[in-house]
Amino acid sequence: MSFPTTSEGPSEEAAAAWESTRERHARITWSLIAEPSDAVAMLACAVLGPVDALELARHGSGPDLLRALGGQLPTQASDPGAGNPPARAARALARWRARLTPHGLDEALADAERRGLRIITPLDSEWPRALDDLQESRPHCLWVQGPGRLDQLVSGRSAALVGSRASTPYGEDTASSLAAAFAASGGTVVSGGAYGIDAAAHRGALATDAGATIAVLAGGLDRLYPRGNTELLERIRERHLLLSETPPGTAPTRWRFLARNRLIAALSQASIVVEASWRSGALSTARLADQLSRPVGAVPGPVTSAASAGCHRLIRERGAVLITEPADLLDLLPGGPAAGEGSWAVQDELDLLSPADRRVLDAVPPRSSITPARLADEIGFPAAEVEATLARLELLGLIVRTAQRVRRAASTT
Amino acid sequence: MSFPTTSEGPSEEAAAAWESTRERHARITWSLIAEPSDAVAMLACAVLGPVDALELARHGSGPDLLRALGGQLPTQASDPGAGNPPARAARALARWRARLTPHGLDEALADAERRGLRIITPLDSEWPRALDDLQESRPHCLWVQGPGRLDQLVSGRSAALVGSRASTPYGEDTASSLAAAFAASGGTVVSGGAYGIDAAAHRGALATDAGATIAVLAGGLDRLYPRGNTELLERIRERHLLLSETPPGTAPTRWRFLARNRLIAALSQASIVVEASWRSGALSTARLADQLSRPVGAVPGPVTSAASAGCHRLIRERGAVLITEPADLLDLLPGGPAAGEGSWAVQDELDLLSPADRRVLDAVPPRSSITPARLADEIGFPAAEVEATLARLELLGLIVRTAQRVRRAASTT
Repeated sequence: MSFPTTSEGPSEEAAAAWESTRERHARITWSLIAEPSDAVAMLACAVLGPVDALELARHGSGPDLLRALGGQLPTQASDPGAGNPPARAARALARWRARLTPHGLDEALADAERRGLRIITPLDSEWPRALDDLQESRPHCLWVQGPGRLDQLVSGRSAALVGSRASTPYGEDTASSLAAAFAASGGTVVSGGAYGIDAAAHRGALATDAGATIAVLAGGLDRLYPRGNTELLERIRERHLLLSETPPGTAPTRWRFLARNRLIAALSQASIVVEASWRSGALSTARLADQLSRPVGAVPGPVTSAASAGCHRLIRERGAVLITEPADLLDLLPGGPAAGEGSWAVQDELDLLSPADRRVLDAVPPRSSITPARLADEIGFPAAEVEATLARLELLGLIVRTAQRVRRAASTT
Repeated sequence: MSFPTTSEGPSEEAAAAWESTRERHARITWSLIAEPSDAVAMLACAVLGPVDALELARHGSGPDLLRALGGQLPTQASDPGAGNPPARAARALARWRARLTPHGLDEALADAERRGLRIITPLDSEWPRALDDLQESRPHCLWVQGPGRLDQLVSGRSAALVGSRASTPYGEDTASSLAAAFAASGGTVVSGGAYGIDAAAHRGALATDAGATIAVLAGGLDRLYPRGNTELLERIRERHLLLSETPPGTAPTRWRFLARNRLIAALSQASIVVEASWRSGALSTARLADQLSRPVGAVPGPVTSAASAGCHRLIRERGAVLITEPADLLDLLPGGPAAGEGSWAVQDELDLLSPADRRVLDAVPPRSSITPARLADEIGFPAAEVEATLARLELLGLIVRTAQRVRRAASTT
């Protein structure tokens, strides 16, 4: 005869809660001691789990680390001094330990609370599952600030609008108007808070009452960088969301910018490069989005504009989709244009038709075909005029001609 | 015992020559009596041969014509009045007969000679085989004028540069500079002699001493249309080639322009649309080139420019290749960049590198791989600088990183 051990329930629950808190704390600690681009730290957490990896970071040796990772260390840009794996493992441990302090975590938690920052880990409900696509390069945790709930902001429609700091008025106008239209449709504009295209995209989104915008910063949220965008970033923080994978006190550096771009790409269902020179860092966001199998778009510009050279390259060589208007952006997202708005793209084509063209198209039945002669009869136009109109409509892809009949193209039915 | 019948040789030869002359004359006659877009005439010539088809045109009946074509008449834009096939066959015959005159051919031949026009048929060595790709819509003959030999001009590298008459200075500059560079590389620029992009393309080609340009006109070569381009067309006639499928005396009309576009597409190894509004006729050239399986390119422009809307559409929806510079055009042609010039595209990327970037790239061996540390040693740069440079070179697609080594991307070896 056995009794239910009622005491097990609560104690199991408590154990699970403690386990979860330990992991959460370990993840936050990792973000305090390792650079965003520290691939060895990320791999160690992925292989061992953050708690055991931290234990190893605290008390293990270089050979322990190397053994735990199967004898191979990932190459990484932030540890350029090459060398044999044992030396690199030792350097990784040394890097981490230099930042491990007895009260580092407690101080960081208290500091975050004081500043009104939330710290989100994969264990939290606010964690956006989209970031899990980063796999081994998934950030340890995120530091966020603002009224927006990150998981909700990016679970609807989200798009990165990024580009060069050295932008042109043309690029800025385009970024702003794309962002405004996308936000107006309820979308979330993700960008990097930088000068130029990023700032224009954020501003465009802020100009509407709908939608949202997220600025993903490369440094800590205590220092709004660049300085000249402080007011803009403060507005984003008040109304939507600021986000970083680095704790307060972290300065934005070159490598942190590059690492940050993977978050922009992963948080967005599609990434659009609005203006980018041949070497722009924005191209890395596009590449990362592509690696994540997320669609990439690029806005064209004059071929004489160096600020558009990177965009043209993306379209020609990397298969990026050419974006000229908000409808093109919506087309890139899962499910295409939202049901509520109907088909913007087709709408625009129809808008370009003259009333007479429109009348001929309207007379083509939606689901069957018709002869040009019958069409002419029905609307009382001369046959030659109907024929000329049909040629235009065919050129526009609005109708299809088969043998001696005409029917609507699939998109207009 | 038999003797070789020596008399047969010359008489066979004479018979073949006469056959050939008859066919040539029949083709020329067809171009006198049928519109370029007269699909019934073209089909009749394709099915019966031009001589027998002409015999039928002269002496046959509507039912004869219909029977000869298997009871089906092709639909065609120039005969918009629909109706039953017998009625249309009768109309076709009536059209042709109205233009058949006893001395029409002789007068046309004499007129051509007086004007210095050559008449080229598929039987002539100057006939460009590229036109045979048009199959049933191959023109009956071509009327050409100028020192260029048509078959030679288009058997090397030829490209159509076309676009809107309502062009912008941006589009015209781009057309001119693309055309000038292409002609300078020995290419032949094919266009339609119209205002705007066409004229800019011809002018660009004329600005160089190399290459050539062909203006394909929609009307007869006796009337240089549009009037405002008379001087330009005269220069093309003096230095290169004017061409039309319509005989002198033919006015350029809407349908003749559309029919003309198929010649531009067929004579060119690739067609580039430089500027085109959403409804531009230049889009039809692109569509025809695509139907001929010839590559299509389009030059992007500001998304705010209506003059580029058609180009953007071609790139996004029709898979046209985005063209920003002459090298992109060369890449579209069979065999890619000419051997003589090396790879322009890669050259341009290399030109953008700083001397230090260049030095790092040069130190990467052409056919094997190297570690970043070894690279740094070899050129005496700090490891961190080498690493930053490698990141840029990777972003530019010039190098590939594998595990802990670096090698050149295929295009730069």
